[in-house]
Amino acid sequence: MVNETQHTCSASSSSKSDAGSSSGSESSKDSSRCSTPVLDADRHERLREKMRRRQDSGDKWFSLEFFPPRTANAAVNLISRFDRMAAGGPLFIDVTWHPAGDPGSDKETSSMIIANTAVNYCGLETILHMTCCNQTKDDITGHLQKAKRLGLKNIMALRGDPIGEEWEEEVDGFNYAVDLVKHIRNEFDDYFDICVAGYPTGHPEAESYEADLRHLKEKVFAGADFIITQLFFRSETFLKFMKDCQAIGITCPIIPGIFPIQGYHSLRQLVKLSKLEVPQEIKDVIEPIKDNDAAIRNYGVELAVSMCRELLDSGVVHGLHFYTLNREVATIEVLKRLGVWNEDPRRPLPWAVSAHPKRRVEDVRPIFWASRPKSYIYRTQEWDDFPNGRWGNSSSPAFGELKDYYLFYLKSKSPREELLKMWGEELTGEESVFEVFTCYITGEPNKNGYKVTCMPWNDDPLATETNLLKEQLEKVNRRGILTINSQPNINGKPSTDPIVGWGPSGGYVFQKAYLEFFTSSEIVTALLKVLKKYELRVNYHIVNVKGQNITNAPDLQPNAVTWGIFPGREIIQPTVVDPVSFLSWKDEAFALWIEQWAKLYEEESPSRMIIQYIHDNYYLVNLVDNDFPLENCLWQVVDDTFELLN
Amino acid sequence: MVNETQHTCSASSSSKSDAGSSSGSESSKDSSRCSTPVLDADRHERLREKMRRRQDSGDKWFSLEFFPPRTANAAVNLISRFDRMAAGGPLFIDVTWHPAGDPGSDKETSSMIIANTAVNYCGLETILHMTCCNQTKDDITGHLQKAKRLGLKNIMALRGDPIGEEWEEEVDGFNYAVDLVKHIRNEFDDYFDICVAGYPTGHPEAESYEADLRHLKEKVFAGADFIITQLFFRSETFLKFMKDCQAIGITCPIIPGIFPIQGYHSLRQLVKLSKLEVPQEIKDVIEPIKDNDAAIRNYGVELAVSMCRELLDSGVVHGLHFYTLNREVATIEVLKRLGVWNEDPRRPLPWAVSAHPKRRVEDVRPIFWASRPKSYIYRTQEWDDFPNGRWGNSSSPAFGELKDYYLFYLKSKSPREELLKMWGEELTGEESVFEVFTCYITGEPNKNGYKVTCMPWNDDPLATETNLLKEQLEKVNRRGILTINSQPNINGKPSTDPIVGWGPSGGYVFQKAYLEFFTSSEIVTALLKVLKKYELRVNYHIVNVKGQNITNAPDLQPNAVTWGIFPGREIIQPTVVDPVSFLSWKDEAFALWIEQWAKLYEEESPSRMIIQYIHDNYYLVNLVDNDFPLENCLWQVVDDTFELLN
Repeated sequence: MVNETQHTCSASSSSKSDAGSSSGSESSKDSSRCSTPVLDADRHERLREKMRRRQDSGDKWFSLEFFPPRTANAAVNLISRFDRMAAGGPLFIDVTWHPAGDPGSDKETSSMIIANTAVNYCGLETILHMTCCNQTKDDITGHLQKAKRLGLKNIMALRGDPIGEEWEEEVDGFNYAVDLVKHIRNEFDDYFDICVAGYPTGHPEAESYEADLRHLKEKVFAGADFIITQLFFRSETFLKFMKDCQAIGITCPIIPGIFPIQGYHSLRQLVKLSKLEVPQEIKDVIEPIKDNDAAIRNYGVELAVSMCRELLDSGVVHGLHFYTLNREVATIEVLKRLGVWNEDPRRPLPWAVSAHPKRRVEDVRPIFWASRPKSYIYRTQEWDDFPNGRWGNSSSPAFGELKDYYLFYLKSKSPREELLKMWGEELTGEESVFEVFTCYITGEPNKNGYKVTCMPWNDDPLATETNLLKEQLEKVNRRGILTINSQPNINGKPSTDPIVGWGPSGGYVFQKAYLEFFTSSEIVTALLKVLKKYELRVNYHIVNVKGQNITNAPDLQPNAVTWGIFPGREIIQPTVVDPVSFLSWKDEAFALWIEQWAKLYEEESPSRMIIQYIHDNYYLVNLVDNDFPLENCLWQVVDDTFELLN
Repeated sequence: MVNETQHTCSASSSSKSDAGSSSGSESSKDSSRCSTPVLDADRHERLREKMRRRQDSGDKWFSLEFFPPRTANAAVNLISRFDRMAAGGPLFIDVTWHPAGDPGSDKETSSMIIANTAVNYCGLETILHMTCCNQTKDDITGHLQKAKRLGLKNIMALRGDPIGEEWEEEVDGFNYAVDLVKHIRNEFDDYFDICVAGYPTGHPEAESYEADLRHLKEKVFAGADFIITQLFFRSETFLKFMKDCQAIGITCPIIPGIFPIQGYHSLRQLVKLSKLEVPQEIKDVIEPIKDNDAAIRNYGVELAVSMCRELLDSGVVHGLHFYTLNREVATIEVLKRLGVWNEDPRRPLPWAVSAHPKRRVEDVRPIFWASRPKSYIYRTQEWDDFPNGRWGNSSSPAFGELKDYYLFYLKSKSPREELLKMWGEELTGEESVFEVFTCYITGEPNKNGYKVTCMPWNDDPLATETNLLKEQLEKVNRRGILTINSQPNINGKPSTDPIVGWGPSGGYVFQKAYLEFFTSSEIVTALLKVLKKYELRVNYHIVNVKGQNITNAPDLQPNAVTWGIFPGREIIQPTVVDPVSFLSWKDEAFALWIEQWAKLYEEESPSRMIIQYIHDNYYLVNLVDNDFPLENCLWQVVDDTFELLN
């Protein structure tokens, strides 16, 4: 939005009388009898309703603006940043529209795809910017349809920069943001929430501050739901602007755009583009320290914090919108100091919920993808229905194949060289693979001194919850039980528990102990003998890459391994071990050996052949201890197995 | 079947080539991916599969034959007997076909309606007998279609008695049971399980024993699934018959029909009808004691037990079929002494499951009808779908009205005079109503010396589980908290617990404490103040007869109050407090004051006016304590309320 400009003439109407065909059904569906426990009202509300609810409850909130990256690598990093910043609980993020960057395309760096990734794979409520000048109606409708199809529900309607210096109005074209607002409402009815830009000091091209306010009112009256402002340097500027807006009848939320100064260069560039005047008192501080980035950033943080405090203290500001410039440090610091960064966000479910409207009822997933939720979302993106309440209720049991291991949002954050350092430049045998698994669990450096912070099946360090099992996991990995997923048993901890809690407060959460690992056929043979002793207590699935499958699951039924009991609700069982989807997961889990690990090495190299051997010969095993109130017996099962082998 | 006779000629074929239109869909549905935890394989299997499974597992079983009653009162009693005998776990019951009693009609004494009641309201796997002689094909098809519509899945195909002494074969008509078997298979394909009759000593009208065996083989080869035999007096008779059947290629199950002699008269009548010869050694015992009913019954029990033992010990008999003559004492005694009466039947769910195939997925119900399950089944009989997994998943939320309080299977087992003795010939005020409730809870006689063994909302004495709460219930009923439903909280008892257990073994069951009662508006006012203190812990619904409804349930969501966690399965939550269905229950619960209680008294009598007053002015309240791991707080809520009132 920083680059946004606006023409000064009054907007011409481009209303169409035929209403969009694609709206309405959503809201009527919502009004029917609810069949899923509404765990998190956020999932079922549109952005404008969330804003209103926060305003009513007095909870302050923040939002974050990003621009699309220039390279595929930068896209991978931006998605990681989304995940990290999602942890602080932004009400939404927005992604700017770069007309020069093919913004509506399927490229991984396009505005559309970045916004799509934020919504679907990072679970973030997202606003996609869209500019209209120099575009045909058909182009714009196409972009909007695509956005809707991808699950985007919010558009920031902007004019965009005209090409060249001279501005020529197009007859019957989109000349102003208001034309785009009207077009969206005409074509898509109330489907999208629409945001428009406000200029606290007036748009630089506007005839006057007052004329600009009138244009803003036109945009709101044409159907915009809320306003985000251009940046400003003094809280008074915004508060006066807000008062002036209200005076002429603008009643929708107006969200101040906050720009924490992060460097001399970026400030200068921004000022040039936005044609804003930097106040003398700021210049006076910055000029002397212009070569000291840290000093400038510290000053920027101070400045932003004090301005935001004034805004929040005014009582009329409920949310703050941050121009992040795709960086996180300064913004997070401001947010933490303001106390609006949510250190311990309540999880509505034990896994991260996707923000796609199609997935709003989704409340159960197989445990297998616990560490690869983006891959699960990718492989189920074509599903028409999502499981609601029970796994088996899904009418779409077919998983998409995962061939695109290199899709930017599924890719490892670490480059090849780093992976080689972690997983071994050269493997000498199966034991050197055991060592990699063990180092990942312990957090100790490997023999070359590198810490193993990710694995093909886990792109992040060990989860806090898994840490509870660390000692036992280390022991078994050393001996060739190569664990890739596990959870401890939990017998009724409060839903507010910082480690294992999820869902509304006042509830209790439960888990059955789970362990999933690769291991050799020799160990599997012994394990199967041991499991006979545990027949009534432990459910198992044991499968190799060819699909030979050994299980004691009754009638291929799913086994609920995580559930929660809450006041006034039906029971939620968000994680299951499902025999059917395990076979889809099996393909992915085995393929990751090759795609992520073996291919790091030369073809026919010994290292590659070791991984290939494991891939071809090992089994993937999962075990559930059904007796959740007793001590987890799975470690005993493994001990018994090794004892039998000795 | 006792009255069944059979002609001796070889059967003529009456095959039709057009297959029935109404079969096949059931089985294809079953083969699709299972979305409900199969708690009890019995619910999903057909009778012949259940029989086969019991045979494979070596579990001995029994079944019970009844004939339709002659009067409406006898029908009420027979239904109670079904419920009592269901407790012993029969594999099935069968209901004979009385051509003279309008057997296919909607009368409460018809074979069809008695079988319908057994299946739907008593949850019993049921075989309906059907005879074919002297009937048109259309009549028979009509009966079969009706049986199917009512949820009956098993037919005992019989010829029936010809009218008059002379037997004339009808051309193209139904002359033999085999014609009926063929007709059922032609018209209904494999929908029904078909049973036919076998005669261990040969049919009295058969040319020879061998010819009769050949007729039996024809019936089996025409599509019968199993055979139940006519009664016999010596185990050798049956064992020889079975061997002879097998020798000519009859491989289906053959179930011995057992007739415990219960009296001199009934034995003579039976012998006359069946044309069987009573062995001399039996006659020798019976004749001298023919006027001593108890002695004859004791002898009959001894005889039956020893014969059944021989049959079971033979290793070829897996199930025993009892001709009960609609009595229970002798048969139950035989079954108990044989050790096949199931003293502690495992409940698949905490409520009695209906045997209608449409309801096979049903696994959640509102708690309100816990003591009136037949009324619940009646009011939901028109539903197309039944909730599976979650209450809200039902697509048929509309409850039928209950206007027919006097339907025989919903009627109180006690006649008016008895009810008056229990509930008071004359009421003197609200306190005398409190006393009735209190006596029901305590089991103590009322002031006139009568025990109160039922209430309008509970036709049976207090459940074992409710007994756990007896002391507190007594205390609150004395003070005008008129309880009609309650359950204690349970925090993970084994699913095999004899009182609160249900579902497969190896699991754990849980409950939230629940209390439902009528009380005055004065108490409600105080209660509401007290509930403010418990806002986060206790959910409540408070409603009066006019529908004024006060609740803190979030978004009208159901609250799961009973659930179970089992090995290898999703979570089952069979009982919920559902705000929507509570309003349907409310109508019924209030109406019972008038229909069952007030109407015992003269119009405008003081007693009637007292009940009417309560009906018009009291509230129906339900309370759930969500904190199931802690001590039940609902008694404290009630104590606090009375304290506030004082």
